[in-house]
Amino acid sequence: VTTDLLFEGVHFSERTTRAADVGWRAAAANLSDLAAMGARPIGTLIGLGLTPETPVNWVEELYRGFTECADPHGAPILGGDTCRAQSRSIAVTALGIVAPDRVLKRTSAQPTDVLVVTGTLGDSQAGLEVLLDPVRYRESTESDRARVIEAHRRPRARLEVPDLLWQVSSRAAAMDTSDGLADAVLQVSGQSGCGAVVYTDRLPISLPVRRIAGARAEDWALYGGEDFELLLAVPASVAGALLEVLNAAGVKGTAVGQLTPGAGAFDQHGLPLRPPTFEHFTGQKNPSPAS
Amino acid sequence: VTTDLLFEGVHFSERTTRAADVGWRAAAANLSDLAAMGARPIGTLIGLGLTPETPVNWVEELYRGFTECADPHGAPILGGDTCRAQSRSIAVTALGIVAPDRVLKRTSAQPTDVLVVTGTLGDSQAGLEVLLDPVRYRESTESDRARVIEAHRRPRARLEVPDLLWQVSSRAAAMDTSDGLADAVLQVSGQSGCGAVVYTDRLPISLPVRRIAGARAEDWALYGGEDFELLLAVPASVAGALLEVLNAAGVKGTAVGQLTPGAGAFDQHGLPLRPPTFEHFTGQKNPSPAS
Repeated sequence: VTTDLLFEGVHFSERTTRAADVGWRAAAANLSDLAAMGARPIGTLIGLGLTPETPVNWVEELYRGFTECADPHGAPILGGDTCRAQSRSIAVTALGIVAPDRVLKRTSAQPTDVLVVTGTLGDSQAGLEVLLDPVRYRESTESDRARVIEAHRRPRARLEVPDLLWQVSSRAAAMDTSDGLADAVLQVSGQSGCGAVVYTDRLPISLPVRRIAGARAEDWALYGGEDFELLLAVPASVAGALLEVLNAAGVKGTAVGQLTPGAGAFDQHGLPLRPPTFEHFTGQKNPSPAS
Repeated sequence: VTTDLLFEGVHFSERTTRAADVGWRAAAANLSDLAAMGARPIGTLIGLGLTPETPVNWVEELYRGFTECADPHGAPILGGDTCRAQSRSIAVTALGIVAPDRVLKRTSAQPTDVLVVTGTLGDSQAGLEVLLDPVRYRESTESDRARVIEAHRRPRARLEVPDLLWQVSSRAAAMDTSDGLADAVLQVSGQSGCGAVVYTDRLPISLPVRRIAGARAEDWALYGGEDFELLLAVPASVAGALLEVLNAAGVKGTAVGQLTPGAGAFDQHGLPLRPPTFEHFTGQKNPSPAS
């Protein structure tokens, strides 16, 4: 069971996120948490805080986006609560089921484990940048812009990955990249009592992101959040097999690093990875979705 | 599984509710929902929206109040989420367990069933009134005021009632009185396809509430919310036995009405019960906790 809050002005704004996308992303964030625990979704609850000025259409669109994301994964809305509030918010609780020996944790990685990440990174950050500053990116192709905006608005949880993982590995640690790859590496390595090295020249970055980000591509791939990809740590002996089953299933898999006996997470040059810059109570990731 | 949202300015305010009481009441509201479904709590998740100005002490007190209410019922905090928000809010999800044949619903009442309510009614409303307008109630005894304020700040979920109920009845419908007795009667009767009559001269009203409310006692008992008592509908043949086991267990039980073959809920004079006046999106119950 997992719960996640989204607040207008913090996690979404009228400027970059339509109601249907707020709903979709709220569903995706929670389904991604289930995927990171190895669980199959069984249902959700939605707690909705609404201002009196909120148009009914906004609420309908929110639910439409939510169900578009959640329904194909067999996660019906089971209930919830709706209240008046001073700003809009959505609190989602998702319930999932997983066999006890198939629970994925952040704590079960070991030194020499290989770090594999699904999909590509930085796409959601790129989409947000384009939405926030369209003038700056007007030279980009419409197709590139559309690709990253779609990635930002309609991220997909990697619910298919745990089954693929267990086909080839008997041990794994996992976390999603909702707060960025660097954060996931820091969490998994730290909570497993290991260090980590990330080969930043091997990060999976799509061509549209490379073209839009330019010199910032690596930064967005490491620190951009909300791609909802999965970071997996598996024994080195099965890493090759994992990449094969992921790629065969149409989930791009990339070995981006390795766990070490030390402490701390570094890139291949020995520079430490930064913890996430998103600080809930002192400021915001720059640029902010609400700015 | 049940979820419930509380927003500052809507459900609580600095003026009437200390942080520890916000936490206690958030726990009680959710535990009460579990009790109304016949479930035993197994854990909770807390989603906390906090403004940057919120003192750390406020958060610590909130958790203290929450655990003071939930811990004795075996409902540990299992997880949650904490976010920056434009106003404070708390979204609680509670998980419970109940055997399939012991699930309490609102839909299973039948005509001639007797309506039994636990405890006394109007206490929380009386406490709120005293907190909002202390000058008006300065003639009341300090003991009366303390009693109703405590009832408002520290309501108790009736988790012990389902077991007592199933000792004497093989069929029951139930709902809690979080939005008032009248609402519970309207919901249970309406969702069971029945009508109902409530004998307003038999409502269980404590002496402190009678003294503080004066002529409004009956109104507060019918329409005041957040007492978190349970309304039970049971076959008339077991109503006497139910009152006996409730009273023997120290849970006051009172037969306050009966279900009818008709539609609509009325008092003994044939006057219809009003639906709750608390309208989330058009206004607030009068007087409001936030006014």
